[in-house]
This record gives sequence, C-alpha cells and structure tokens, in this order.
Amino acid sequence: MSGTAPTAAPVLPIRGRFRPLGLDEVRVTGGFWAERQKINGVATLEHIEHWLEREGWIRNFDLAAHGDLSRDRRGREFSDSEVYKFIEAMAWEIGGTGDAELESRFRAVVRRVAAAQEPDGYLNTKFGRPGQAPRWSDLEWGHELYCVGHLLQAAVARARTRPGADDGLLEVARRAADNVCETFGPDGIDGLCGHPEIESALVEFARTTGDDRYLAQAALFVDRRGHGRLSDVEFGREYFQDELPVRQATVLRGHAVRANYLAAGAVDVAVELKEASLLEAVRNQWKNAVARRTYITGGQGSRHQDEAFGGDWVLPPDRAYSETCAGIGSVMLAWRLLLADGDPQYADLIERTLFNVVSTSPSADGRSFFYTNTLHRRELGTLPDADQPSLRAAASLRAPWFEVSCCPTNVARTLASLTAYVATVDDEGLQLHQYLPCTVEHRLADGRDLCVTVATDYPRSGQIRVRIDSDDDHPWSLSLRVPDWAAQGATVTVAGDTRPVGPGVVTERRTWRRGEEIVLSLPMAPRFTYPDERIDAVRGCVAVEYGPLVLALESVDVPGIQTVDEVRVDTSQPPRLVDGRVTVRCRRVHPQNHEWPYRTDAAESAPVVGQGLDEVALVEYHAWANRGPSTMRVWLPTVPTSRNVPAN
Amino acid sequence: MSGTAPTAAPVLPIRGRFRPLGLDEVRVTGGFWAERQKINGVATLEHIEHWLEREGWIRNFDLAAHGDLSRDRRGREFSDSEVYKFIEAMAWEIGGTGDAELESRFRAVVRRVAAAQEPDGYLNTKFGRPGQAPRWSDLEWGHELYCVGHLLQAAVARARTRPGADDGLLEVARRAADNVCETFGPDGIDGLCGHPEIESALVEFARTTGDDRYLAQAALFVDRRGHGRLSDVEFGREYFQDELPVRQATVLRGHAVRANYLAAGAVDVAVELKEASLLEAVRNQWKNAVARRTYITGGQGSRHQDEAFGGDWVLPPDRAYSETCAGIGSVMLAWRLLLADGDPQYADLIERTLFNVVSTSPSADGRSFFYTNTLHRRELGTLPDADQPSLRAAASLRAPWFEVSCCPTNVARTLASLTAYVATVDDEGLQLHQYLPCTVEHRLADGRDLCVTVATDYPRSGQIRVRIDSDDDHPWSLSLRVPDWAAQGATVTVAGDTRPVGPGVVTERRTWRRGEEIVLSLPMAPRFTYPDERIDAVRGCVAVEYGPLVLALESVDVPGIQTVDEVRVDTSQPPRLVDGRVTVRCRRVHPQNHEWPYRTDAAESAPVVGQGLDEVALVEYHAWANRGPSTMRVWLPTVPTSRNVPAN
Repeated sequence: MSGTAPTAAPVLPIRGRFRPLGLDEVRVTGGFWAERQKINGVATLEHIEHWLEREGWIRNFDLAAHGDLSRDRRGREFSDSEVYKFIEAMAWEIGGTGDAELESRFRAVVRRVAAAQEPDGYLNTKFGRPGQAPRWSDLEWGHELYCVGHLLQAAVARARTRPGADDGLLEVARRAADNVCETFGPDGIDGLCGHPEIESALVEFARTTGDDRYLAQAALFVDRRGHGRLSDVEFGREYFQDELPVRQATVLRGHAVRANYLAAGAVDVAVELKEASLLEAVRNQWKNAVARRTYITGGQGSRHQDEAFGGDWVLPPDRAYSETCAGIGSVMLAWRLLLADGDPQYADLIERTLFNVVSTSPSADGRSFFYTNTLHRRELGTLPDADQPSLRAAASLRAPWFEVSCCPTNVARTLASLTAYVATVDDEGLQLHQYLPCTVEHRLADGRDLCVTVATDYPRSGQIRVRIDSDDDHPWSLSLRVPDWAAQGATVTVAGDTRPVGPGVVTERRTWRRGEEIVLSLPMAPRFTYPDERIDAVRGCVAVEYGPLVLALESVDVPGIQTVDEVRVDTSQPPRLVDGRVTVRCRRVHPQNHEWPYRTDAAESAPVVGQGLDEVALVEYHAWANRGPSTMRVWLPTVPTSRNVPAN
Repeated sequence: MSGTAPTAAPVLPIRGRFRPLGLDEVRVTGGFWAERQKINGVATLEHIEHWLEREGWIRNFDLAAHGDLSRDRRGREFSDSEVYKFIEAMAWEIGGTGDAELESRFRAVVRRVAAAQEPDGYLNTKFGRPGQAPRWSDLEWGHELYCVGHLLQAAVARARTRPGADDGLLEVARRAADNVCETFGPDGIDGLCGHPEIESALVEFARTTGDDRYLAQAALFVDRRGHGRLSDVEFGREYFQDELPVRQATVLRGHAVRANYLAAGAVDVAVELKEASLLEAVRNQWKNAVARRTYITGGQGSRHQDEAFGGDWVLPPDRAYSETCAGIGSVMLAWRLLLADGDPQYADLIERTLFNVVSTSPSADGRSFFYTNTLHRRELGTLPDADQPSLRAAASLRAPWFEVSCCPTNVARTLASLTAYVATVDDEGLQLHQYLPCTVEHRLADGRDLCVTVATDYPRSGQIRVRIDSDDDHPWSLSLRVPDWAAQGATVTVAGDTRPVGPGVVTERRTWRRGEEIVLSLPMAPRFTYPDERIDAVRGCVAVEYGPLVLALESVDVPGIQTVDEVRVDTSQPPRLVDGRVTVRCRRVHPQNHEWPYRTDAAESAPVVGQGLDEVALVEYHAWANRGPSTMRVWLPTVPTSRNVPAN
C-alpha cells in the first residue's frame, strides 16, 4: 500500500479504463481458489522443480556455464522457458506468501541461469555454442525469442514483488533484452519469433524499467508479423499468424497459444502507443473468436494436428484440443482488454476459463496435469506412467510431466498470480470482477483508502457479500460484475433495499462507511445450455451449467453402463440440485448394430430408448478424471421431446 | 486366355473361394470407368512422369549410380516408391493397351532404377551411401522396406503382363527381395518396417516366382509386428500397428494406409499358409472398421494429425481425412477378403470406395488430385499453385503434386489395373462383382470357354444386361452381386421370367447358350440415408445417395447463398430425379448471431428458417470441386419434421 512501490501485478498498462491492483492489495482468505493456490504454492512448485532437475532442464544452464553443452543438452528447444516460468511462479508465490525457504530456492535457480549468460547478453542453452546451430538460425521453430520473453516475465514478476532485490535477475533480463534489441532492432535482423511471447514481455519490461526502447522493439515485432517473413510450413503461415498482419486479421486463428500471446502483446503495444486501430483490430478478433471458435468451457483450439483454432463452428467435443496454455493465453488477452475497455464480457470469459480450463488441468494433488482438455472421452483412459514424462500431449488422463511441458509451469505462474485478476480501481472507485473470499485494500493517490472484505462461498452459492472496511467522507463507486449467465433473477441489496439486476455491471456510488454492505445474489439454479446450431458436432445435444461451472456426465457416476454414450438426457425436466449435486433425468439407450452404419430407414439408425436411469448426478467439469479412468461427456444427446426441437 | 501364361492380375492367391481374372480376360468397352482409365493412361501417366522428373525423384537413381547422391538427393525418404508405383502403373497400362511408346518410356525408367542397385541387391537412394544414414538405421520412418515392396509390386505387374520380357525388372526385384530376406531373415535383423507394404509384396512375389522363401519372410514380418519392436512415437505405436499383434487386434486402427496394407498382407499370408485364425482376425477387424470407422463414401481415417482411423464413431465430416491411399488400401484389403471368402459385402465396399474415393481424387483432366477427401468444406478453397507441389496434404482443392505424393501414383496404378476387380471364376462358373460395359472371356482348365458381354450404363441407370457369348453343353453358374443399397425393388430376368431379388448374390445355373441373357435391374430412385446415431458429428443430418453414388450439396449449385451451411433439407419429400440430376427440397436458414454461442433458451440457438430454396440439385460427390472454389456438404442438416425424429 506504499505509494512508491510498484504494483505487484503482471500487467501494468500506462493507461486504460481500469488500473490493476497488486498481490499485496488483494488477499484471498479461503474458498475454491485459496485451496488451489495453496496446493500450487507447495505441491506443484516442488513437483515442477523435481521434474526440471530430473529431466536436466536446469542442468542445461550449468552445462552451458561450464562448456560441453552441445553433447549433453537435454529437452526440447524451448526447455529454458519452463525454467523461466518456474522462476516467475516462485516470484509471485514469494510475493504473496514471503516464503523464506522458497526464496532461497528461487535464488539458487536464478544463480544457475545467470551463470550461463554470454558476455553480450545472449542467453539460450540450445543455440550458438560449438556443435550447436547458430544463434537465430531457426526463427520458425527455435523459440529463442520466446524463451527470452519468459525470462523477462520472470524478471518483471520479481521486480514488482521484491523491488531492489539483489538476486541479479533483473540485470540478467536487461542484458538479454538489450541483446534482443541490438540484434533485432531497425538495423538488425528483419525477423520475428515463430512463437509470440517476446512482444508482451518487452512491453512489460519497458513498463518495469521505464526504458521505451523495449516498447519500440515490441512494436517492431508486432508490425513485422503477418508478411510471410517466416518460412511456410506444413500447417501454413497461419500457424504462427504470419500470413496476415495483426491489423488486418478479423479473428484469432492458427496455433491457439501463439494466437492469444500475440494478441495480448498487440494490446500492450496499442495501449502504450495509443494505437486505437490496432486495439480495435484485436478487440474484433477476440469477439469473433469467442462467438465462433470457443468451447463452452472457454477452451480454445479444436485441432490436434497443429494445436490450432479450427474454422468457425468447428468445435468437436471429442477432438477438442483446448490446450491448458491456450486457456491461460485467453485469460491474459481478456484481462488486457478488460483493463483497456472495462467491458465486463472480458471478465465473463476470464471467469469461465479459470473455472473450466485453468482449474481443470491440475489434479487435486497438484502433481499431474491435463495438457489438452477434451469435452468428450469415449473410451476409458489409461493412467500415464507417474514416473515418465508423457510423450503425448493428448494424454488420456492427467500426466505428471510432458516432453513438451509448457502447461504445468504455466498453470503454476497463473495460480500464483491469480489474485491479480480479482479487482481493479479507477478514478471513481473499486471494481470487483471475480468473486472469492478476500480482502481488498487500496490507497488512492490522494491518500484515501478503499478497503472491502468479500465474503462468499461462490460458486457453491450465489451470494456475494461485500463489506466496506474504510471510512471516507467522499463518495466513491463500488462496481460488481453480474455474470452473463445470470440472465434472470440476480439481485443486489444495499442498505436494506433489494433490486433486480441484469448481466453487466452494477455500480453503487455512495459515501461509504465502515461496516456498510452490498450483497449481490446470483441465481444458482442449474440450467440446460443449447449450442448454436452451426456447431455441427453437438447438434441435438445440451450441456448443463451451474453458475460459472460447466458440468459433465462421468461414467463413474452411472453404475451399470459401459460408456456415457449410452445415456440420453430428458430435457422436459430441468436439472435439479439434490444433496449438493446437480442431477438430470436420463434414459439409457441401446444401440442397433449393423454391418454398415448408414441406413435408408431412419428408425434403423436410431438407438432403442430403454427404461430410465432416472436421476443421474453430474460432476463439475474441472473435477472430472479424479476418480480413475472413466468416460465423460459435456454435451449430452437429448431424448427428443417437443421442448428441444426448434419449431419448424 | 492361354492356359500357361500367368493371369494378368495384381493378386493371385493359391486358394480361396474365387479365382481372379486377368486384364486380358476382362475388356472394358465404355462407360464411367473406361473414360477414367483412358485419361489415366494418357494424361495422368504423362503428368506423373513430368513431376517425377521435375522434382528429381527419378534423377536420384541416376545420382546413386554415379555417386554424389548424398549431397543432391531430392524428395522425401519414400520418393523411390513413387517411381516404382509409376512403373507399376505403366506395366498394367501396357498390359491392357500394348502401347509401344509407353513401353519404351517404361524401359527407360527401369534402366535408370536398375543402374542404382548395389552389388548385394540393396536398392534405395536415401540410405547407405557415404554421407547418408546407414541402411536400415531408421525402421520407424525410413520406409526402406516399404520402397522395396513397391518395387516388387511393379515387377509382379510386369511379370504377369509381359512374362519373359527382357527389361531386367524382375531380376532387379529378385535381388532386392533376396537382400531383404538375407538381412531380415530368422538370423538377421529382428525388425520390421514402420510402413507395412513389404508383407503383401513379398507374398505376391513368391506367387510370381514360385519361391516360398519370400512367403516365409512375409509371414515373419507379420508375426514380428505388434510387439513394440518399433520405437514409441508421439502418436503411439498404434500409429504403425506395432502395439498389438495382428492376431489379437479386433479393429483396424492407427494410420489408415498402414492399417489396410498390413491387413492385406496378413490375408495374403493367411491364405497361403492356411492360417484360418489369422484370416479370421483380419476379417473381424475389417467388419468392425466398416461398421464403426468408415465414412459413407467408404473413406477411412478421421484424424489429420496422424492420418489415422479415429475411435469408433468418430467420423467428423469437416475434418475427414479419408486419404485417397487409404481408400485404395481398403479396396486392396476387401478384394483379398472377397477372393478368400466370397462374401458380396466386400464387393459392396469396393464399389462404394471406387466410386466415392478413388474416382474423387483425380480431377476431370487427370492432372490434379485430392490427397484427402473431406465430406464438408465450410469455406471457399483456394486453387493450389499449378506449378508447385502442395506443401499441405489437406489442400483445399485438387493439387497437381504433393511433397508427399503417394496418392497420384497410387491412383494411377489402381485405375490401370481396375478391371481386375470386375469378375472372378470358380469351379461352378463366373461371378460378376462390379458393373460396367465389358466383355469377359475365360477358358477353364478343361478347355471350355466362359464368355459374356455386359451392357449397361450403370450407375446412370440400374439395368445390367449380361449376354452369353459362348456355347457349352455343360451347365455353369453365372452369379451377379445385388448391392447392399438395393434393399428393395431389385429384379432379375432370365428367359423372360422376372423375379425379385434381395441384396447379396443371385446365381443362375444353366446350360447357357450363346445369345441368352440375364438382366439385373437395380432400383435407382435417389434416397435419403441416415447415420447411426452414435456418430455424434452428423446427428440430425441426412445424406443423399443414388445407386452406389454418394451425392453432395455444392454451393455452385445454389445461387444466392454464402455457404452450403445455410441450407436445410426438408425430408418430408423424397429426393427426386429431375432432368438427370437428383434434387432435394430445401429451405434456407438465417443464423442468429450472439456474442456467446451457447444459450439457455434453445430458440436463441436455432437459426430462423426462411422461405424455401425449393428444389436444389445435388452433385455426385466424386465430381465436386471441378467448377472452382466452393463450399460443400455430404451430410445435410434437416428441417425438423415428424419423419426424421426417431420415435421416443
């Protein structure tokens, strides 16, 4: 709450509709996310360190410092970035908890990284040494700039949570960033990285250091993309967004992580340089991607082949890729747009994605992860070897580690900095975007304090009670987001007055006194959700949602079936809450098997509808696959009734 | 028709239900396939030779013969096989037409290939020379045995169409096969090829040469597979069928071309060695693959990532891979099973696949090709560069050549030998499996002749008129397949008597006299076809078929629409034949656009049904994309009516 210390948040735009709060200004006091943050800070960070050591990805830096790297280097070309994301995660965690033991582990890893830096600032264990490919010789796939980007993000996290710390990380990052600017500046290599990340990182590094040279370099990278400077590849240049300039694209496309990271960097550049048309282009891409290329979970990417967005409406649940990192990238992008524009729709998508993608990836113990997040598993998966990295990104169950292990470290840094997404301020007051039990304390520039306590067990229930903890003689505004799913029945109560509110933002401007309360009540009846009919892959199906949570039918909850594909939902009865679980009325179907599955007689193709399974309990999607191998569906075929057939 | 010359057919099992006829015994006299064979024999073969020269894939053999290959070799690791498939296609074409100019081109290419063979028989331009990877050092991906397999197939084609020719091809193949047996025999490398092909080729080479050593080697390769001898890869060992022995697998799985080639080789081994249980295993795999993993076109493979079969019922039309070569592999497998078992279901699938996959790949001029055969194109494609090989297998329109160019040469050899699939004989008489205008002349071992002429314009109409052209004092059986799609209304007429027949085989056994006729009349009304309801991707849709032809809605046939996705079919009126084209009654729908495409109110998700487009003409699927960029659907969403909603 010092006026001079930097705000301890990952994104600090120079301007925009809202200003972020730091990790020290929002304190989580319990609930859904506190539990996940605790597991993340203890189990997941330890787990990651174990695997980074075991796989030799930290040791690569030691080898680089002592020679002989080219022979013994281990891991993929981007393994350095996992070490950096681990450092970033530790920085946020230390910033939030002050954990002294973690601080010493942090410093040890930073020392090993720093020792590998070349005299001119270049830092990458894969390129440039005798026996290795030359520096910058494979911009398409080499990930060198991508790795520098994650190094900068780690240094930014540290500089904002422990300003002035003597660990040397900021200097290492500065020398690496300078090397990038010298190498890729206006007079340098006219190139860019196959995997965006450096753009956003350079902007944030400029914000942290105050040196606009990094911002100019980020803008240059954004401008260079989209003109075919990268070689064509099997998936097309769309794969790395190099087929069309950012300013001209109308929808997110190609590799879904790359697409979101690039768009986030473009927003950063646009905000800093007041480039309204660039911001408008990304805003439009985001809108179209959300309207046509996003799963109900918030997941993005429907193509395994190139980990890419599919075309409009191509959203097969059984081949959903929905990479965890794409979900994280989507949160990064939406947060930047929310800060710039203030539109609650961005916070709606953040909420959906946090609950249904980011929190789905890690297992309950924080030691295994989904890389992809399918919406339909047809066959019982097999438990990945707990002692081996999974070869396949699309592991059927959560795996401890991957050969391409971007997701665990990305989850770790996101959960460690999660409170950054909860609240913001502007000149009028305080905005709450996400609901969890917490305290928020912010000192305005004029020295006034805005303090509130949020009490809720959301999303278990829909009541969010915000108590004012500061006195002020001046009026200020407290704004609460009413989620888009709360279309009917939400109310807000202030000073005994209750009134209905619709989706969007409800703002109360008053001269708030300590102890006063505002209560938002969201309608928590479970509900059926119907897909746009252009999504061919789920025609004739419904999903079930409860508040911000997407639910799923998991076979372990339905005794006596072979697979969830035997279950049909009767939508003539709405889903119900029974003993804390959402249930739907179901019937079991028995397929008719033919040697050829296409029939002239429609009746021969339809399954025989059997007697009811009656009420079947659904599982929260984020919690599925925690009870051993199972089959699972988010989109449930319906028993045809007059209610679910659109009128002719 | 000589009793001593080999039968000029690609597959000559030692035993089985039916015996194949040679290219000289079945002469196509016109119609759908004659036209395609003519284009293939002239335009396609010339086109292939042009590209093989242009890309340097034949020149690789020259370089190998003269040194310096490692530096200048061009093409992928399997490019030799395209040269061999081209040689095979020429051999069949020369066998059918006797084209003298083609004969000299054939000999020229064979000479260049032969010059590259090593003294010990090894023949591959990618491995084993100074500067290249050692021989057999990459069995997973190197394709060395695969290439030898295609060399043997080419030699077999030549030996059966020009026995005793002095071109040297048979000797080249024999030395390569001997090298394989010496290298991979019981005391040699305990390995196998990542891409099956050598198995089937070795069996056929044994059949041609009479040397059972090749058969034993094929059996060894089949037995070795499925035990994890190949390294694990990202897609899993299922990709090359090395995760489970052939005898234990219950369905075709993994890479769809590999799966079909392996299964074909396993049938060959099983038939030769009387391994009933091996044959039964493949038969069962085929049945399950056809019942659950095959598109309505006969296409197989629903995964772009690994060109693989998807799981059961995972058959998305918009991401259909349905590789042309997988269709050809499916024809190869079904043909072997038909010869072994005699079951007409195999001929049904062959017909479906020939009309809807194999004939779909080449353009009308025979100079560009689909590599994959999607069942739904959502966006207008772009014409591939006519002067560049296409980087991407999934080119949106037919392309002249590919970096991986297996399909054009595979189509060429298949069309050149197509008449092999038309008819067979057994001790009882003659069987007609596919219908096209042709003459069939076969001399039995006892010197009697069986001669018929087939007159038909099938599949334009359903009348197939078979006239007997030989006199015989002994009775013999003439069998005609009644396709599975002809469920009702088929009749057969013999000597003025007409009787109804159902799907399967109708057999007339008589003492046939010259000039007598049997007429099969198939019901050619266009029909709606409904998918098994477990195929989630096409729930609520119908296809339209006409005889063996799958039809499609192509945007160029519907003026005024943006995309075929705006069209709904009214199934309350059956499809009709209007002026030679099949039409369906349609309505146009107007989507409701929302910022978030999942709605609590079902009515908000459904499109608004607009006024009718009335009758819309469909295109034969094999002929789509011949009129420029278009959108296209095989599976058409229906306007809900009481007729297409299964009874509750």
